[in-house]
Amino acid sequence: MAESVDAPAPVANPVPDTDPAYREAVVDLLGAIAYGEISAFERLAEDAKLAPTLPDKVDLATMASVELAKVHRLHDRIRSFGADPFDAMAPFSTPIDEFHGHTAPADWYEGLVKAYVGDGLANDFYREIAAYLDPVTRDLVVSSMEEGTHAAFVVDRVRAGIVEDPRLGGRLALWGRRLMGEALTQAQRVAADRDALSALLAGGVDRPGLDLASLGRMFTRLTERHMARMAELGLEA
Amino acid sequence: MAESVDAPAPVANPVPDTDPAYREAVVDLLGAIAYGEISAFERLAEDAKLAPTLPDKVDLATMASVELAKVHRLHDRIRSFGADPFDAMAPFSTPIDEFHGHTAPADWYEGLVKAYVGDGLANDFYREIAAYLDPVTRDLVVSSMEEGTHAAFVVDRVRAGIVEDPRLGGRLALWGRRLMGEALTQAQRVAADRDALSALLAGGVDRPGLDLASLGRMFTRLTERHMARMAELGLEA
Repeated sequence: MAESVDAPAPVANPVPDTDPAYREAVVDLLGAIAYGEISAFERLAEDAKLAPTLPDKVDLATMASVELAKVHRLHDRIRSFGADPFDAMAPFSTPIDEFHGHTAPADWYEGLVKAYVGDGLANDFYREIAAYLDPVTRDLVVSSMEEGTHAAFVVDRVRAGIVEDPRLGGRLALWGRRLMGEALTQAQRVAADRDALSALLAGGVDRPGLDLASLGRMFTRLTERHMARMAELGLEA
Repeated sequence: MAESVDAPAPVANPVPDTDPAYREAVVDLLGAIAYGEISAFERLAEDAKLAPTLPDKVDLATMASVELAKVHRLHDRIRSFGADPFDAMAPFSTPIDEFHGHTAPADWYEGLVKAYVGDGLANDFYREIAAYLDPVTRDLVVSSMEEGTHAAFVVDRVRAGIVEDPRLGGRLALWGRRLMGEALTQAQRVAADRDALSALLAGGVDRPGLDLASLGRMFTRLTERHMARMAELGLEA
């Protein structure tokens, strides 16, 4: 497998959590993830309303609950750094709400693809950044990412939908590109606004970080995994 | 304490779960509770959207998730009686959906009162009927009823709202009466349609049940507890 798709090796000496710059960055990160989970809950609960059958509705409502359960663990960790969880989430409400406002699904299938592609992208990014975290936070972030039961459910429904109506595939492929574009727009906005979080990724005078080449490889990995997810759904990326 | 507010003593010899009439009744009951929980999830997730602050939103979304978690345990028990959970829930979707359709909250406070009064009434009824169930089902039904964290949250918010705007108390008192009336309407409908479930309460030739006097006392208890809940909210019943 090409170097570009390998996950980064954990940094041997993560910045200790007594460093104020690290604290600021990690509280930002946990706040962003927590607000993202609340948002995911709301989106999935909305999708549950559109569900064509009661079993589908129960599955989506269950997924919504799984996302929400993560919020409390993230809040506890934010508190352990001496910060308030709601203050920590505040800077991310606008970019995350705008992402959702600009990508409101027109139907059940667009909602499914959005959940799958959006969660996948977010999870990939959090796994990348996890390498720069202290072990306790890293375990929390990685474990919150792996509990979703979404993937198989969505792949199954979307593939079945395309078999029934092949034109759906073209529309959903365009939709996937729009989701990726909007996600990158909001990510750039966060990177520009949140210095501490960016510094965690970019490193500093005394902290290991990603150089430009590594950042480039990270984006390549994220893009490749996005394409793999689209292919999994039976869609062209 | 007057006899009318005491809970019924468990029946010494609950009908064994091999009795087909008992199975039918208990599958009905579990189906009704499970559909009610799905409904509660949807209603609470909707209320979360109306929440005036992010902490309120998180609290309501958490309550929604707690309701949903119960659904899976109820479904497992329905399967253990050899029935399909979705078939079991089907007869109750119309009365429960109509209850919610006829009592759509106009604002955040009506939503809070509805959740509190509605859940309280449902829980009281399930506790009453639990006395006629086999021990495993009884424990499941009783334990699903006790996990909610709703009560303190709602009482706190509603009382604070009335302090701020005393006219709110009059409007919400009327609202509470409307909820009780609609709940009784739908309960009568279920009692008329579902013979097995009614028979479980009323008893039969070879099964202990409630005579008319006991049924009357049960309704008195349910009404008294409804009035106690309204008083707890600072509202006239």
